Amino acid sequence: MIVRMRAEATAEATEAVAAELRSRGFEVHLLTGGGAPVIGVNGQPVPADLGPALCALPGVAGVLDTTRPYRLAAREARPEGTVVQVGDVRIGGPEPVIIAGPCVVESREQLLRAAEAVRAAGAVMLRGGAFKPRTSPYSFQGLGEEGLRLLAEAREATGLPVVSEVMEPGQVEMVAAYADVLQIGSRNMANFPLLKRVSQVDRPVLLKRGFAATIDEWLLSAEYILAGGNDRVILCERGIRSFDPATRFTLDLNAVPLVRQLSHLPVIVDPSHGTGRRDLVAAMALAGIAAGAHGLIVEALPDPDAALCDGPQSITPDLLADIVARARAIHAVVAPETAVVA
Amino acid sequence: MIVRMRAEATAEATEAVAAELRSRGFEVHLLTGGGAPVIGVNGQPVPADLGPALCALPGVAGVLDTTRPYRLAAREARPEGTVVQVGDVRIGGPEPVIIAGPCVVESREQLLRAAEAVRAAGAVMLRGGAFKPRTSPYSFQGLGEEGLRLLAEAREATGLPVVSEVMEPGQVEMVAAYADVLQIGSRNMANFPLLKRVSQVDRPVLLKRGFAATIDEWLLSAEYILAGGNDRVILCERGIRSFDPATRFTLDLNAVPLVRQLSHLPVIVDPSHGTGRRDLVAAMALAGIAAGAHGLIVEALPDPDAALCDGPQSITPDLLADIVARARAIHAVVAPETAVVA
Amino acid sequence: MIVRMRAEATAEATEAVAAELRSRGFEVHLLTGGGAPVIGVNGQPVPADLGPALCALPGVAGVLDTTRPYRLAAREARPEGTVVQVGDVRIGGPEPVIIAGPCVVESREQLLRAAEAVRAAGAVMLRGGAFKPRTSPYSFQGLGEEGLRLLAEAREATGLPVVSEVMEPGQVEMVAAYADVLQIGSRNMANFPLLKRVSQVDRPVLLKRGFAATIDEWLLSAEYILAGGNDRVILCERGIRSFDPATRFTLDLNAVPLVRQLSHLPVIVDPSHGTGRRDLVAAMALAGIAAGAHGLIVEALPDPDAALCDGPQSITPDLLADIVARARAIHAVVAPETAVVA
Amino acid sequence: MIVRMRAEATAEATEAVAAELRSRGFEVHLLTGGGAPVIGVNGQPVPADLGPALCALPGVAGVLDTTRPYRLAAREARPEGTVVQVGDVRIGGPEPVIIAGPCVVESREQLLRAAEAVRAAGAVMLRGGAFKPRTSPYSFQGLGEEGLRLLAEAREATGLPVVSEVMEPGQVEMVAAYADVLQIGSRNMANFPLLKRVSQVDRPVLLKRGFAATIDEWLLSAEYILAGGNDRVILCERGIRSFDPATRFTLDLNAVPLVRQLSHLPVIVDPSHGTGRRDLVAAMALAGIAAGAHGLIVEALPDPDAALCDGPQSITPDLLADIVARARAIHAVVAPETAVVA
Repeated sequence: MIVRMRAEATAEATEAVAAELRSRGFEVHLLTGGGAPVIGVNGQPVPADLGPALCALPGVAGVLDTTRPYRLAAREARPEGTVVQVGDVRIGGPEPVIIAGPCVVESREQLLRAAEAVRAAGAVMLRGGAFKPRTSPYSFQGLGEEGLRLLAEAREATGLPVVSEVMEPGQVEMVAAYADVLQIGSRNMANFPLLKRVSQVDRPVLLKRGFAATIDEWLLSAEYILAGGNDRVILCERGIRSFDPATRFTLDLNAVPLVRQLSHLPVIVDPSHGTGRRDLVAAMALAGIAAGAHGLIVEALPDPDAALCDGPQSITPDLLADIVARARAIHAVVAPETAVVA
Repeated sequence: MIVRMRAEATAEATEAVAAELRSRGFEVHLLTGGGAPVIGVNGQPVPADLGPALCALPGVAGVLDTTRPYRLAAREARPEGTVVQVGDVRIGGPEPVIIAGPCVVESREQLLRAAEAVRAAGAVMLRGGAFKPRTSPYSFQGLGEEGLRLLAEAREATGLPVVSEVMEPGQVEMVAAYADVLQIGSRNMANFPLLKRVSQVDRPVLLKRGFAATIDEWLLSAEYILAGGNDRVILCERGIRSFDPATRFTLDLNAVPLVRQLSHLPVIVDPSHGTGRRDLVAAMALAGIAAGAHGLIVEALPDPDAALCDGPQSITPDLLADIVARARAIHAVVAPETAVVA
Repeated sequence: MIVRMRAEATAEATEAVAAELRSRGFEVHLLTGGGAPVIGVNGQPVPADLGPALCALPGVAGVLDTTRPYRLAAREARPEGTVVQVGDVRIGGPEPVIIAGPCVVESREQLLRAAEAVRAAGAVMLRGGAFKPRTSPYSFQGLGEEGLRLLAEAREATGLPVVSEVMEPGQVEMVAAYADVLQIGSRNMANFPLLKRVSQVDRPVLLKRGFAATIDEWLLSAEYILAGGNDRVILCERGIRSFDPATRFTLDLNAVPLVRQLSHLPVIVDPSHGTGRRDLVAAMALAGIAAGAHGLIVEALPDPDAALCDGPQSITPDLLADIVARARAIHAVVAPETAVVA
Repeated sequence: MIVRMRAEATAEATEAVAAELRSRGFEVHLLTGGGAPVIGVNGQPVPADLGPALCALPGVAGVLDTTRPYRLAAREARPEGTVVQVGDVRIGGPEPVIIAGPCVVESREQLLRAAEAVRAAGAVMLRGGAFKPRTSPYSFQGLGEEGLRLLAEAREATGLPVVSEVMEPGQVEMVAAYADVLQIGSRNMANFPLLKRVSQVDRPVLLKRGFAATIDEWLLSAEYILAGGNDRVILCERGIRSFDPATRFTLDLNAVPLVRQLSHLPVIVDPSHGTGRRDLVAAMALAGIAAGAHGLIVEALPDPDAALCDGPQSITPDLLADIVARARAIHAVVAPETAVVA
């Protein structure tokens, strides 16, 4: 069962509903980070008279029984949509949000130059990996905490909030000490201990879709984070595995209107990993916005061909600026109704 | 080897080059339907002095040795792109082209109403199946020649050229007698005898991508048609098979910028079959245009829920009109450079 | 509705049931080629009293209402299984059947040497393509009718029945004039006009699974052939398209026990196309037999490395002989109950 | 570079080679757990005269430069194959190894009955999850340490070594305190911090293939474990994600002969997760052995329909006993040469 509170409900009103439910022996999930408060009840069957009783309490907007496997992540839990605020940036709001930066932090100079460049190109958040999942044990694995320190320095220098990947439960605290948003990578979408741990930190989470995950599995991974008390979750489509070797992955834009229907969480698109080819990034970035995405995360840096990791999919700041301008124009054509039109 | 002629080359100049090549014992493919003439040479190794000799002939723009598996379909054969003209409609030109209509022709009244409705909504070509590939032998298989007659009648009534599917070599002449464009469906993309037959008719061909075909296989199927002498080929992305049951197919928009790079043929998108879900059609149609498609083919009719076939993916004329307007606005933002930007 | 006759029912008894059904206005499909007669009724709803009335007629074993999309191909239509007889060879019977030969007939000498070699190695049927679907229009497309003549000559010389591919409706009669079994290739599994045409010839059909076809789609393609009156259909699993480039296709052996449950038709396995790698053929051939397959179709010839087509997946007669011996030993361990065990 | 020692090389001889390499400034990986010692060198380029110099040292069998992305896991590092010993059980040796038990430990009684039953049926190792990755946060997640205690008790009672899953780095020590073999599940195949942690425990690791992992990615995950010092790795094919909803996953038996060629590590097959359907387990188990697998891991328990988790894919002890007997008979037909035949 889910209790939706009104956006203007006071903290006291919300707590009163939660207390009422706890007093009846229910386990309660309370979500207040990304919009109107939502209270989820897990577990035992709910007596028939409980719904009307709750609806009579101050601030309650509605009570729902959900049959979907995910409940807190379902659109019905917050029909108006969740907005995740990071500093001044609002993901899920009226403006498309562009996040950009290098795949991996390689050096102070590389990062600071890239950060300035992407800010100048119109990006509002900085991406960069300090811990990096690499298929081979012999590949460069990131600078670790030193990389995080550099990201914090780049934030100081540019004012851009930073998003960085966390790979294991034991790293969460450290990454959260430096980064504004914690990224869960595609290979960790079903790393349930990690999902549980990030559900308990006061940081938004950028949850990438597993490259062979169904939409339902993805939303259930989001549900792990919400059920732990963190509703500041940003979904990110980053390409699925398909049969055509022409691209590294197949960016699945169908997922964008689909999750906008099924869930209240904002969704962005990663055309860099989603294709693995620099020459497809611009077209797929704009297609993602046209499909209804709330933003983009793009690999960009001044000298892509010198990168240690994923250079072939990184774009230049000039192309990024061009994408930003066109993305805004397309967003104005489609937003906000396209993705949920029927 | 490919000889590119200048757009303004006379028929005599083109024929003179072809004659020169034939006199040296080469088999020649001559393409003049969709843009500047292209002459392809198949077979034997080409002597080193032949290229320069040909370049000296009147009207010759260039000579290329290609190493790609497809040659006539490759972008280099006609770098400026092919425009397929059907009546007043130009596919591959500066305007996005919207083709719409019912999945299958079911009756005179259904078709005429649908044709008027899609014309009013801004579509410039009419689609409708007379012969229909159905997975089950017990499903409705189309009206056959009677369906073609009705399509011709709808063209008379509305002025819209019509596109209709052809399923086997023996049907090609009959369908060509009624339809303006011959469609090859996804399941027939690798039906090579059919490709050879349509290569010899004076009708443009709309070649859908097989739902498990790589981009290379798709362009090689186009090459069959070009090698037979017909260069009026329109490519159509219509969804690939993936692992997620949430949609019937996964519309693969990555294919759009990719084939625009690799080939000079125009490419359109089918968001109806590509998703199988009416509620995703608008978002994916607009995403297709943003990805660089030259047009759309959409299932639309006044009363989708009464359709015998594919009703769940058909949209109403009102939504179609909305898509047409937004598609034009997005096209103006991206065209023509997005898809080939690097 | 399906009426199952007893195996020993006379032709007159079967015809009497069919006549009774026709007299009541039903369209009737009569199958007598591969085992006990089966009469399928298509179309209108069946009155409640018809089943008991039919059961009282001589020779009737049972009456079933089926809800599956395929009916005549469903296991229930002939629970004891279909045996397809080709000369002395019985596919679906107690012995595993090994079919072998070159991918494509290239010359008289190549074919006759290969035929002798595979016979000596224990194969009981000869395969060889005269018409060959090739992805590129520039690849060798087969010898055509000359190839069929050579196959007939190889049959004379060795006593092996021959199986050869048919690619379009207009070729069916010609191929049937020479070959003992008509093969429908993977790319033509959903070529419905071709399926209809082979349903009307007096030749068994080897129906390969489309490389992206579901089991249901495959059995519905078989249903097209059965519904046209031909129940001598042999199913052949030949690999599906997957994401791993390590093999050309992914032989899907799960399909073997699955179709043995779902259908009465015999099923064989093609480890050559299924993997595309000579070094995997032996292991996957034996795995196919262990999974419950009724036989194998393998590309084998004396000098694989000299082949014009698919040499990399062809094996030598020595390895074929080894496979035949081990396949028989494994078949003795698993047959006949493994595949249908629960 | 890899230095292969002879099987009979003394520990001193091996250490002398390692010391020589270290003295020259190389980082050295020493593997002695699963067969003849292997010394891997990472990093800097190797001088041309080093190979011959090392070959002259006592106990050295050979020196190789490898170009594969994985080196220690490659077949060439230990051509005779690795045997992983667990108690009296030898995985990779001449006998097929059958591991069986419940999906998840649910209660003391369930586990002890299951353990006795699978031992009586011929299984030589017990499987059972104490920590269980579940797609939904609301599903039963396992008994945790209590489940491990029950597994240890079942080992006492039956003498069967136990294998149990570990989900995060922080759990490794605890699971290793109870279980004989640590299992890495499909969703964690690319959980690199977890791979690093298990590389440092004195326990064999059963590494399941990610359900969308290529063979190369799988072997690189194994390489993580070997590079950390643990060469007691057992590979397990457990089904890949495909487009057909008829089965939960598609058991990919092509992987078996492929990894036997590419790697020296033993490989087993999981037909339970690989199909998700009880009625396919027997056929696919036997097919796995015929394909060359060194063993099976099967979900089996006395009352499958009462299981909290994965009951639909669990089989009865009676069917398990039947599989064990036939698996041995088939293994005798194929082993050991089939999988590496060419």
